[in-house]
Amino acid sequence: MPGGLRTDLYELNMAVSYLRRGMTGPSTFSLYVRKLPKHRGFLVAAGLQDCLDLLEDFSFEEDDLRYLGTIGFDDRALADLAGVRFDGEVWAVPEGTIVHADEPILEVTAPIAVAQLVETALLNRITLHTTLASKAARYVLAAEGRDLVDFSFRRTHGMDAAMAAARSSAIVGFAATSDVAAAQTYGLQVAGTMAHSFIEAFPSEDLAFRSFAEDHPTRTTFLVDTYDTLNGVRTAIAVARELGITDRVGIRLDSGDLDNLARAARAILDAEGLSNARIFASGGLDEFEVAELVHAGAPVDAFGIGTQMGVSADAPYLDTVYKLVQYDGRASMKLSTAKASPPGPKQIWRSGGEEGDVLGLRDDDPPAYGWEPLLEPVMQDGSRLRPDPPLRRLQHRFQDELVRLPTKARRLSHPEHVAVGRSPALAALTVQTQADALTRAGLGEPRGSD
Amino acid sequence: MPGGLRTDLYELNMAVSYLRRGMTGPSTFSLYVRKLPKHRGFLVAAGLQDCLDLLEDFSFEEDDLRYLGTIGFDDRALADLAGVRFDGEVWAVPEGTIVHADEPILEVTAPIAVAQLVETALLNRITLHTTLASKAARYVLAAEGRDLVDFSFRRTHGMDAAMAAARSSAIVGFAATSDVAAAQTYGLQVAGTMAHSFIEAFPSEDLAFRSFAEDHPTRTTFLVDTYDTLNGVRTAIAVARELGITDRVGIRLDSGDLDNLARAARAILDAEGLSNARIFASGGLDEFEVAELVHAGAPVDAFGIGTQMGVSADAPYLDTVYKLVQYDGRASMKLSTAKASPPGPKQIWRSGGEEGDVLGLRDDDPPAYGWEPLLEPVMQDGSRLRPDPPLRRLQHRFQDELVRLPTKARRLSHPEHVAVGRSPALAALTVQTQADALTRAGLGEPRGSD
Repeated sequence: MPGGLRTDLYELNMAVSYLRRGMTGPSTFSLYVRKLPKHRGFLVAAGLQDCLDLLEDFSFEEDDLRYLGTIGFDDRALADLAGVRFDGEVWAVPEGTIVHADEPILEVTAPIAVAQLVETALLNRITLHTTLASKAARYVLAAEGRDLVDFSFRRTHGMDAAMAAARSSAIVGFAATSDVAAAQTYGLQVAGTMAHSFIEAFPSEDLAFRSFAEDHPTRTTFLVDTYDTLNGVRTAIAVARELGITDRVGIRLDSGDLDNLARAARAILDAEGLSNARIFASGGLDEFEVAELVHAGAPVDAFGIGTQMGVSADAPYLDTVYKLVQYDGRASMKLSTAKASPPGPKQIWRSGGEEGDVLGLRDDDPPAYGWEPLLEPVMQDGSRLRPDPPLRRLQHRFQDELVRLPTKARRLSHPEHVAVGRSPALAALTVQTQADALTRAGLGEPRGSD
Repeated sequence: MPGGLRTDLYELNMAVSYLRRGMTGPSTFSLYVRKLPKHRGFLVAAGLQDCLDLLEDFSFEEDDLRYLGTIGFDDRALADLAGVRFDGEVWAVPEGTIVHADEPILEVTAPIAVAQLVETALLNRITLHTTLASKAARYVLAAEGRDLVDFSFRRTHGMDAAMAAARSSAIVGFAATSDVAAAQTYGLQVAGTMAHSFIEAFPSEDLAFRSFAEDHPTRTTFLVDTYDTLNGVRTAIAVARELGITDRVGIRLDSGDLDNLARAARAILDAEGLSNARIFASGGLDEFEVAELVHAGAPVDAFGIGTQMGVSADAPYLDTVYKLVQYDGRASMKLSTAKASPPGPKQIWRSGGEEGDVLGLRDDDPPAYGWEPLLEPVMQDGSRLRPDPPLRRLQHRFQDELVRLPTKARRLSHPEHVAVGRSPALAALTVQTQADALTRAGLGEPRGSD
């Protein structure tokens, strides 16, 4: 299915009207998050690569059009839709960029029918990836340099959510994923050991460990908590010693009091001369539990992070919107209370200092010397302007961004938001557009931007 | 990608060991939810059709095997995996069945290597669909017969989550979806109107309404809250009157105080003779808000339900597990505290009365005359036993189930759980398996099941 029907019906309704009426003037839509969830001091933009893929692929096939005919679209509508491709322009922040409320993650400029048809899919991709990258970043903050591995595949909302979880968590610094398909697709490190069922399938834990180590001598991490955790540690040591692999084994704790068990296991491992053995902890950990274990000094070398990250459990969605900000040369905004959106194509300016960001119009000058623009052109005439950057570059982008982020915004609990000011030109355009909209609504007199 | 790599690495590690060691005895794994989320008095099983699709399709292609070679699997492992197909048996409850904690949604019996390889994908599918169906069912309870439409596509966790949201919500009684691709795939009603951007793209609201109504005379629902909601209602009426379509228009409210606005809009519509005009409400509604509007008597005919349902915002995952319950004729269970799982292949018995359900072994007799078994064979030797039931049958299944569900479990807040008893045979097997497991762990003496 190459995309045409992957949209909401109302996009098709609107597109058909625009096409029929020759409303082909360029429009700009801005995709951003209006309000951050409770525990988010910042977001990590992600999902752009998927968006560009789907824009390049967007069209209606014969089957799609036939189906649309059955739900009430007439021949003229179908003929108009048959010719639709995405031939517009996209500006976006690079994936891995930290963004705040109201800051566009991407902006689309295209004939309004086309820009409208791709709304649903763009929102879906950006919301998914940005939600997961932003959640995963909290684990990176909590882990303070300890390794993190994505274990979320089994409980993400579907297969493409699993792919997104693996990729998004890699962008913010996760070391590996358990998802083999994602590792293959994105060139990620892949990690995994054994399940409790493996231990149970053998007559004894000892035999299970021995078999696994023989079959997988280069990646032997023993899951020690099937029966009795510390007994399991001793069994693992005995097996490692017999097989002569004490220099390259690890253990995984998946239940119980992870702090106490990690300390006890570390003591046993050290006393037995396995001070190189890594301790891996997993089991439904949220970022606060990771932070607590790290602060307590629990000797955990790596965390396996599953469901809580993979569905962004405390904040499973973002308040993403896709707003018409300019049509046919005229700035646009919705008036209704509490949902007013700033008009015009934008630029985000960042100094990296405590003064926060400035949201301006795309053709504004920088607020001052040294401020960096975040939005850049990535697609023109429906084609990518350059190949997708390698994942490594996105990882560096995020690392650089995180270092510059004010500490107050990095807190896991009750973070403070970074201020996002408005440029004088944006402020003026907002006032003027508001007045124009009131006039169009028959509710006010035209006003200047004074 | 036909499935082989859509798994966690540890499944592959384990499968390779099993295949190498000739551990081909049949195993049974049970997929169930251990504990219900806070506001869930019941769950609605869903996702089976997807599971059967992926089991029938499960194999490793040459590309998959080549990739596995690059991450450390040796030639013998690759040769073993090349021959793997899912040739096992599946028992499951029909989609749309209400289930409770510990009740298997499906059970897989297959050589342990194969049963293990499909774990990740089965958990992913069942968790996604069951999470969303269970959330959508709460809206059905809240709406008390008013129409519900799935609007969640733009913020679900990806494209297949959107498909799952549309299908799952249809199973529990949603009337339509905005997702055109899902409507096409599953034969659902599709619904949609216009966005605020449509109104803004025209010089006036009046012209926007007129254009839309001309282009879509058979589905004209006017979005009235772009500028001033009640003005919008009056404009809609004027346009409907001029075009002679007053008998088939509706209005949509997407912001503000929906209760007051719906009453005011209803009064205006009725006073102007448009008592047939339907009022549609949307805007980030959770099920409690829907219930409140319904209880207050707000004259809303249909609700558009988006993100809160589409990500199951208050409970975005379920505590689903896939547990080895029998291997090579021997019952199996994990011992570790608080996670102990009942052993053996199961049957769920339901009387429909206040006494709740009974969880028993698959070959148990019914607890008493008239109790209905919920699990049924759906796949044998890797093939479906019958074609997928039409969606209508799943919808009826859910309706029948909901009627029989005790009221206390249907409450939106603080529901009480339905009791799930254990059959004598299951209780005996649990004691015996626990004792055996302790022995295997070297922690206890063998005991009988006395």
